[in-house]
Amino acid sequence: MFTRIDHIGIAVFDLEKSKAWYETTFGLTVVAQEINEEQGVHEAMLIVYDGPTGGSHVQLLEPTRDDSPIGKYLAKRGEGIHHVAYGVEDVAGTLTTLGERGITLLDKTPRHGAMGSHIGFLHPKATGGVLTELVEAASR
Amino acid sequence: MFTRIDHIGIAVFDLEKSKAWYETTFGLTVVAQEINEEQGVHEAMLIVYDGPTGGSHVQLLEPTRDDSPIGKYLAKRGEGIHHVAYGVEDVAGTLTTLGERGITLLDKTPRHGAMGSHIGFLHPKATGGVLTELVEAASR
Repeated sequence: MFTRIDHIGIAVFDLEKSKAWYETTFGLTVVAQEINEEQGVHEAMLIVYDGPTGGSHVQLLEPTRDDSPIGKYLAKRGEGIHHVAYGVEDVAGTLTTLGERGITLLDKTPRHGAMGSHIGFLHPKATGGVLTELVEAASR
Repeated sequence: MFTRIDHIGIAVFDLEKSKAWYETTFGLTVVAQEINEEQGVHEAMLIVYDGPTGGSHVQLLEPTRDDSPIGKYLAKRGEGIHHVAYGVEDVAGTLTTLGERGITLLDKTPRHGAMGSHIGFLHPKATGGVLTELVEAASR
């Protein structure tokens, strides 16, 4: 079902500061950066590993507004790991399969994710408190 | 510096129940299970992806006592993502390098980790609230 750990999503107060920290401290490289107005987030992807089934990344997430999911997370818990994302070959099909297995979905159909991907989130109440995302990467 | 996302560590109340859930829901396979008395944890590793630089896993962590780090985490925050671990080739050397870069280390020298690995933790106050582990896998 899963082809890789696509990324871990980390909530941060200051994207530029955190990006510089990950670049300087761990030597990671930013491979994409974009604003997703729908999700209220300014995000950067830094590559950890690129393999035959795709890349594994650190995703840094700064809210563009306080009432966004990341804004609320930061207000409640401060900076930290927000979610994990697994790579899949077919996000629509995987969401359907997991729905049939009784998992509550936050996204019944895929939506736009980072770097041209298609994504879907599972409900953390259905996954033992772990907000879980599925990522079908853009063709490359 | 990093060769992969080695694992995400997830704190759980009931290891057997969570293991069965990850096996049934996501089709993951348990590749190792052990009790680490020093850390007060009963842990299972489930493989997500195995690549040329090593595997990426989900690590499920159940405390063996309430005053262990995982026991305290569960009491405070409930089940959820506890830490992220990156693969490295030389954990002792990487800890030294990061110490020289001013990062506060929880482990100045490596200790025993899962599956015969050698590990070291960085202090979450030094890493933007993200408890971060370095893993040098056992030779294979």
